[in-house]
Amino acid sequence: MPHPLAPVRLGLIGAGRIGTSHARVIAERVPGAVLAAVADARPGAAAELAEGYGATAYDDPQALIDDPGVDAVVITASSTAHADLIVAVAGAGKPVFCEKPASMTLAEMDRALAAVDAAGVTLQVGFNRRFDAGFAAAHAAVERGDLGQVQLMRSLTRDPGLANPAAVPPWTVFTQTLIHDFDALLWLNPGASPVEVYATADALVAPDFKEQGLLDTAVVVITFDNGARAVAEASFSAAYGYDVRAEVFGSAGMVTVGDGARSSLRTFTAQGAAYDTARGDVELMIDAYTGEFVELVASVREGRPPVVTGRDARRALAVALACVDSVKAHAPVAVTEAGLGA
Amino acid sequence: MPHPLAPVRLGLIGAGRIGTSHARVIAERVPGAVLAAVADARPGAAAELAEGYGATAYDDPQALIDDPGVDAVVITASSTAHADLIVAVAGAGKPVFCEKPASMTLAEMDRALAAVDAAGVTLQVGFNRRFDAGFAAAHAAVERGDLGQVQLMRSLTRDPGLANPAAVPPWTVFTQTLIHDFDALLWLNPGASPVEVYATADALVAPDFKEQGLLDTAVVVITFDNGARAVAEASFSAAYGYDVRAEVFGSAGMVTVGDGARSSLRTFTAQGAAYDTARGDVELMIDAYTGEFVELVASVREGRPPVVTGRDARRALAVALACVDSVKAHAPVAVTEAGLGA
Amino acid sequence: MPHPLAPVRLGLIGAGRIGTSHARVIAERVPGAVLAAVADARPGAAAELAEGYGATAYDDPQALIDDPGVDAVVITASSTAHADLIVAVAGAGKPVFCEKPASMTLAEMDRALAAVDAAGVTLQVGFNRRFDAGFAAAHAAVERGDLGQVQLMRSLTRDPGLANPAAVPPWTVFTQTLIHDFDALLWLNPGASPVEVYATADALVAPDFKEQGLLDTAVVVITFDNGARAVAEASFSAAYGYDVRAEVFGSAGMVTVGDGARSSLRTFTAQGAAYDTARGDVELMIDAYTGEFVELVASVREGRPPVVTGRDARRALAVALACVDSVKAHAPVAVTEAGLGA
Amino acid sequence: MPHPLAPVRLGLIGAGRIGTSHARVIAERVPGAVLAAVADARPGAAAELAEGYGATAYDDPQALIDDPGVDAVVITASSTAHADLIVAVAGAGKPVFCEKPASMTLAEMDRALAAVDAAGVTLQVGFNRRFDAGFAAAHAAVERGDLGQVQLMRSLTRDPGLANPAAVPPWTVFTQTLIHDFDALLWLNPGASPVEVYATADALVAPDFKEQGLLDTAVVVITFDNGARAVAEASFSAAYGYDVRAEVFGSAGMVTVGDGARSSLRTFTAQGAAYDTARGDVELMIDAYTGEFVELVASVREGRPPVVTGRDARRALAVALACVDSVKAHAPVAVTEAGLGA
Repeated sequence: MPHPLAPVRLGLIGAGRIGTSHARVIAERVPGAVLAAVADARPGAAAELAEGYGATAYDDPQALIDDPGVDAVVITASSTAHADLIVAVAGAGKPVFCEKPASMTLAEMDRALAAVDAAGVTLQVGFNRRFDAGFAAAHAAVERGDLGQVQLMRSLTRDPGLANPAAVPPWTVFTQTLIHDFDALLWLNPGASPVEVYATADALVAPDFKEQGLLDTAVVVITFDNGARAVAEASFSAAYGYDVRAEVFGSAGMVTVGDGARSSLRTFTAQGAAYDTARGDVELMIDAYTGEFVELVASVREGRPPVVTGRDARRALAVALACVDSVKAHAPVAVTEAGLGA
Repeated sequence: MPHPLAPVRLGLIGAGRIGTSHARVIAERVPGAVLAAVADARPGAAAELAEGYGATAYDDPQALIDDPGVDAVVITASSTAHADLIVAVAGAGKPVFCEKPASMTLAEMDRALAAVDAAGVTLQVGFNRRFDAGFAAAHAAVERGDLGQVQLMRSLTRDPGLANPAAVPPWTVFTQTLIHDFDALLWLNPGASPVEVYATADALVAPDFKEQGLLDTAVVVITFDNGARAVAEASFSAAYGYDVRAEVFGSAGMVTVGDGARSSLRTFTAQGAAYDTARGDVELMIDAYTGEFVELVASVREGRPPVVTGRDARRALAVALACVDSVKAHAPVAVTEAGLGA
Repeated sequence: MPHPLAPVRLGLIGAGRIGTSHARVIAERVPGAVLAAVADARPGAAAELAEGYGATAYDDPQALIDDPGVDAVVITASSTAHADLIVAVAGAGKPVFCEKPASMTLAEMDRALAAVDAAGVTLQVGFNRRFDAGFAAAHAAVERGDLGQVQLMRSLTRDPGLANPAAVPPWTVFTQTLIHDFDALLWLNPGASPVEVYATADALVAPDFKEQGLLDTAVVVITFDNGARAVAEASFSAAYGYDVRAEVFGSAGMVTVGDGARSSLRTFTAQGAAYDTARGDVELMIDAYTGEFVELVASVREGRPPVVTGRDARRALAVALACVDSVKAHAPVAVTEAGLGA
Repeated sequence: MPHPLAPVRLGLIGAGRIGTSHARVIAERVPGAVLAAVADARPGAAAELAEGYGATAYDDPQALIDDPGVDAVVITASSTAHADLIVAVAGAGKPVFCEKPASMTLAEMDRALAAVDAAGVTLQVGFNRRFDAGFAAAHAAVERGDLGQVQLMRSLTRDPGLANPAAVPPWTVFTQTLIHDFDALLWLNPGASPVEVYATADALVAPDFKEQGLLDTAVVVITFDNGARAVAEASFSAAYGYDVRAEVFGSAGMVTVGDGARSSLRTFTAQGAAYDTARGDVELMIDAYTGEFVELVASVREGRPPVVTGRDARRALAVALACVDSVKAHAPVAVTEAGLGA
C-alpha cells in the first residue's frame, strides 16, 4: 500500500521526443511519482516541457542533479552524453534511470558502472520490453523450464518510419534499435552467454543515404555458449506500424510474443477480416513504458537494485559493438569475456 | 496537462469486494485522483480499507458525503442502497459515481434522476465496458457507419465462479450481470430502442439452489425498433476464466470484441498451441476500470456530464426488469416507452 | 485400401446449383466414386451437366433410378420433391443420399423413413457440417466429456448474398438455412432432446420483400431437456463472405468452431493486419462436401448406415417447423416427442 | 472437365515412407491418376505397397520405367539415386516427378537436366510448399507487388522428431530439410538471385551424435542481389508438431504463412485457450501433397512444363551446398552464377 509514502520526485534530463513521452507517462500513469524537474541545454526546451507539469526547469543538467527536491534522475539526453550524466548523478548519490544505450563504448560504460558502484546508487536502463506482459510471461516460461533447453530464438524491431535519414548516425540500427533485441535475447536465454555474432546490414529503405553510412535494415545471428542460435532483425520502415516480436524455441516447446493489435477488435468487411495495428512505439509499448517507471519508483523506495541494470546494458552493448565489427569484417566476430564484462 | 490542477478527492461508500478493487485502481492507476475517504456501515470495514491509502474512515455514509474534503463520491454499497445514496450525494451538491445497477426499480431510478437533475450534479454509472479499448473501437465503427445497418448483435458475460450460491439474490443474472450486456447492446446500436425481450434462465451451475430462486445461466433475445435482434448470454461458471465478448453484425460487415488473452504470449508444447486466459473481472477489465475513473476525474474537473449517465442506467435496467417479467410470463415481453424513460 | 473394389456408380437427380457443385466434388475429389448418371426434368439440363463427366443423362428421374448402372442415388432436386424421390429410390432397393431438408413436413418425412426402412436401404442426409474438421473435433470433445455438462450453445449461418429475394419461399430461413444449425446443435448436445423453441425473424436485408413473406434474418433459442440453451442465428447477407460458426459451453470449458479463413496467409499493410475470408459455401465447406460423399461411398461399400441419417433429418425438421409456429404465435413453442420421432 | 480423358497411369519408384504416403495421396485424393506400378529394389517392398492399389510390382526400376502401362514416373527412391533415375526415365521419353533433392551435386543435377532437355520430357520436383494455399497466396501477393520491394524474409522447418539420429547423413539439415525453405525463399523473392549465404549449425537435439556429423539445428542468412536478407531455420525436434512457416516483409507491408492448426477448433478450459497442432508433415501438408500430384497430372495431360521444375531444384541445391561450405569455412560464402545455373 504505497499511499502513506511520500511520492518519489523525479528529475528528467533531456526534453526531446522520448523525454517528452516519459514525462507524460510519469505524470499520468505512475503512482507515487512526481515529475519535479526538467533539464535541457537547448534554450527554452526544459521550460516548455516543465510548465505542463508544474516542474522546475533547468538549462544546466548539473543544477537539476543537485536540486534537493529531486530524489532520482531520469536521463533521456542524447546517447553520447549518457555516460557522463550517469557519473554526475552517481556523484550526487542519487539513483539513476538511463535510456538505452547507457553508453556508446564499453570503456565509457565501465566508467559509468564504476561511478555507480563507488557511489552505492542504483542504475536502471530503459530496456522496456522486460516490462511488457508478453515478454515477461515468455521469460517466466523459460525460467520455469517450460521450454526445456533453449535452441532457437528470434527477436525483431520494425519501426514504422524513417523520418529523417540524414540525421541517423552510422550503426544506429545496432546501437539504438537492435540493442533492445539483444537485451531481450540475452534475458530470454538465462545463464547463457553470447560467444559470436554474424551481422549483415544494408540501406534498403533509403538507399540514397547509404553512402553517408545509413544502415536501415539488418539481420544478426548470435551464437550462445549453450549452443542456442538467435536471430535479431530490424527495419526502419514497417508500413503496418510498430512491430516488436520474439520467439523462443526449446527442446520442450516454443513461445511467441507480440501481435501488434491495438485492441481485441476484429473487423469483417467485404475486404475480409482485419485488426488495427499499433502505429508507434509509445502506442504499442505504453504498458511497458509505464512498468519501467513503476519499477524505478519501487526500487528507489525499497532501496534495492532494479530488475534491469547497467550490467545488462553493458552486455547488450557488447553484442551491438560486435555486430558493427562483423559488418566491417564481413565475417562472424567473437564476443569475448572482456566484452561481456564480469 | 492536468498537473497544475489540484487532485480530485474521492470518497468511497462501500468497502466490499468491488469497493476494495476500485480503491486500489483509484490510488494506483488514476492520475489526478486521491482516495480521500471511505465509508462502510460494517464496523471496522471502512477503517481497514482506508488505512492503506491514508484516507479518512467513516461508519456513516452521510458523514463522508458531508466531508468538505470530499469532492465527489463513488458508491459501491449494496445495490438496494444505491438510489438513496445517489439522492443523498446529490443533496450535498456533489458529483456521483454509482456502481451498476444504479437502482433496483424504475421508480427508485426516477427518484435518483430527479434528485440529480434538481441538484445540477452529474451521475456516472459503472458500465465499464464502454472504457475497454475493444468495445470503444466497436462503438466507433458503428458510429462511423462502417457496419451499415445493425441487424444482429451478441453480448455475453461468463464469470469464472459462483462462490456462494446461497447468497445470490433472485434475478441477479439479469439485474447485476446481464445489465452490463444490456448497456453494451444499447450503446452499440445507437439511435435504436429495445421494443421487446424474450428471456429464459435456469440453474445449471448449482441446480440444488434453483428452488430458492438461483438462476445462473440465461439467454435473452432483444428486438430493437430498427429490426435488429440482439442475444445476451450469461453464465456464473466459466471454467476458463472471465469471458466478456460482443459481436455486431450489420449490412456492411461485422465487428467482434473480446479474446480473453492475458498477454500476447502464445505457447506451443506437446499439448498443442495455447494462451492464458484472464481469470477475473479485474484482471480482464483493469484498463476499463481505470478508464471509468479517469473519465470521472475529467468530467468533474471539466464540469461536464460523463459519457455514461443515469439515463443509460435507467434504459439498461428497463431491459433487465422486462427480462424478469419474460421469465415469469414464459413469453416475450414489451419494453415500453415508459420503461425506457424520456 | 479401396482400390481393388469397383467404384461406386452414383446417379444424381437435380442439375441445379448444388447438384452441379456435388457433381464436381464427386468427380474430382472422391476416390472410389463415379458420376454415372444425371437426371433433371428441365429440358437439356441433365445432358449439359452429364456431358462433362461422361455420364448418362435422363429427363425422367425414375429412369435414372432404374438404371442398373447406378449403384446409389444422390437427390439434389427441389426440396418439395425430396420425399417422393426417396420413396422411389428406396423402392428400387438402392441407397439414397438426399440434400437437406429431406422433406418439408413431418408426415412426408415419416413416409420416406417408412419406405427406407421397408426396403432395408440406407438414407444419408446432406448435413455437411458433420464432416468439417472443426465441427467433428468439437463433437469429439463433447463426446469425450471434455466440456462437462453442456449449458450454452451457439450456431450460426450467414450467407454472403441474397441474389433473388423474390424467389425465396417463406420460412426458407428455418427449413433450408437454419436446419443446418439445428442439426449441428442437436449433434453437439448428444443424448439431449429439444423441448422448446422461441424464434424471431424479419426482413432486414430486403425489406421490400417482407410482405410477400421473405424472412432473411432470424434468431432462435432452443431449450433442451438437459437444461442447455442454444442460440441459432441466420442472415442472408454477410458482406464478408460465408460464415459458419459454432460454440459449445459446458461446465468444464468451451469449444468454438469456424474462422472463415481462406488459408493461413496473414497480410500486414498500412491498413493493418488482415486475412481473406471464404466467399461462398463451396469454398468454405469444400472439405466437408467432399467428406460427406466419401462417407456415402464407404457406407455403401460396407453395407452400413451412414453417420447422419433420415432420423437426424426428421429431428432437425421438427425444430425448424416449431420455429415457424413460434414466429406465427409470437411465443415459445414446445417441440414434442411426436415431433421429434422415435 | 477431366472425365472423358483416360487416367494418367503413374509408376512409383521407391516404397519407403514418402513413397507410401505419395501412393496413398495419388490413389485417394488425385482425380485422373492411377497408381499403376511400384518398384523397389528391396525384396518384397514393391509388392507390399502395390498390392493395396492393384498396381504392378517391380524389383527393377528400369522394368517399371519401360512398362508401357506407365505414363509418367514418380521417383521417391533414396536421394543419391535420383539423378540416375531421372536420366533413365528421360531416356524412356516419359515425364518425371522427383522428390527433393533432385540430386546431391550440381554436376549430377546438370546431367539430369541435360537428359531431360535432350529427351524433351518434363521434370517436376517435390517442392510441395508451392501448392499450399497459404504459400501460394503469399507468392501471389508478392507477384502483384502488394508488399513493394522485398527486404526481409523468413522460412522455417521444424520436424517433430528425430527418430534415428545415427541414420541421418551429414548435411541433411541443408540438403534435405532446408532445401524446402531455400526453394520457398527463392520463389517468394521473384526476379532476385541469392548472392551469399552464412550458415551455422549444431547438434542440439542429439548432441551425442555430433561427432559422427549430425547437425540437427541450423540457421542460415541469405543475401539476395536486390538487397533482401532472408533467414532460414531448421530443427529436427519440435515438441509441438510439424512447423512450417514463412514471412515476407517489404517496403509496403508483410505477409506471414503457417499456423499449424489442425482445424478451426479452439478449446477453452481451466488450462486456458488452445488449439491442436499438426503432428506430421503429411498431416500438415496434405493439401499441398495432393496439389503437387494434381499439377503433375495436369501438366502431363496438357503437355506443358509443371510450375516447379528441375531448374528450381538446381537453384535451391546451389544454396544448400553453399551452406555446407559456409559451415566448413565458418564464414559467409558466395553463391555464384555458375552455382545457380542459367
